[in-house]
Amino acid sequence: MSHDLDPSLPWLDALHWDADGLIPVITQEAGSGRVLTLAWMNRESLAETVRCRRAVYWSRSRQRLWRKGEESGHVQHVRDIRTDCDGDALLLSVEQEGGIACHTGRESCFFFRVEGEQWAAADPVLKDPKDIYVK
Amino acid sequence: MSHDLDPSLPWLDALHWDADGLIPVITQEAGSGRVLTLAWMNRESLAETVRCRRAVYWSRSRQRLWRKGEESGHVQHVRDIRTDCDGDALLLSVEQEGGIACHTGRESCFFFRVEGEQWAAADPVLKDPKDIYVK
Repeated sequence: MSHDLDPSLPWLDALHWDADGLIPVITQEAGSGRVLTLAWMNRESLAETVRCRRAVYWSRSRQRLWRKGEESGHVQHVRDIRTDCDGDALLLSVEQEGGIACHTGRESCFFFRVEGEQWAAADPVLKDPKDIYVK
Repeated sequence: MSHDLDPSLPWLDALHWDADGLIPVITQEAGSGRVLTLAWMNRESLAETVRCRRAVYWSRSRQRLWRKGEESGHVQHVRDIRTDCDGDALLLSVEQEGGIACHTGRESCFFFRVEGEQWAAADPVLKDPKDIYVK
């Protein structure tokens, strides 16, 4: 509870962007409630997400806009966008095309469970990545 | 998809901690699937969360361990801990004591919805914060 969001500000200015101009984004499947990914947005990607109603993130590794599904076809159709009490995170509710959000071919990126003192893959691969990322 | 998590590493070393030694943590109600908060952990808070099966975060504003519920009584009992494909975020599944995660007295911190070009509070206050944070 650092600084509460001021809803009277212009909506993009009300958010607390980090030192790199980014905000973390939780994406959740609207139907099942399954949390699919944690990704990042800058102002441009959030505005673009609202404009086209599809999730557009900022890829920190590639340092460019990342239109989710641009290679895999696994587009996320945005149903709802929320922020939290202090405006430093976003929550997208989406319909996940193909039922696969993860580049490993799983429904969700959160497939490693802690068991004892190890991470164990707990979810099945639904589609071989070789069949997702075809040239 | 920067660097995939290597599950053969010791579990705390397998995670990708940021420059401040932190990792973002999504917390989700086990029963309803509602996303409650996005908070942060360092190694010590994650180890402590596993040890006592209650959510212990790192408060960035107070720069100290934050045992969720220490003031409000709204403890989070941890049922499951997951990480994602590249090990740079955590997902906790919890039972939220009191049914309130937010310091504003709401179930979830994600109560602001974007409507047009404004953030609008979309969820009811379940308990007046004055009655939560009593000395």
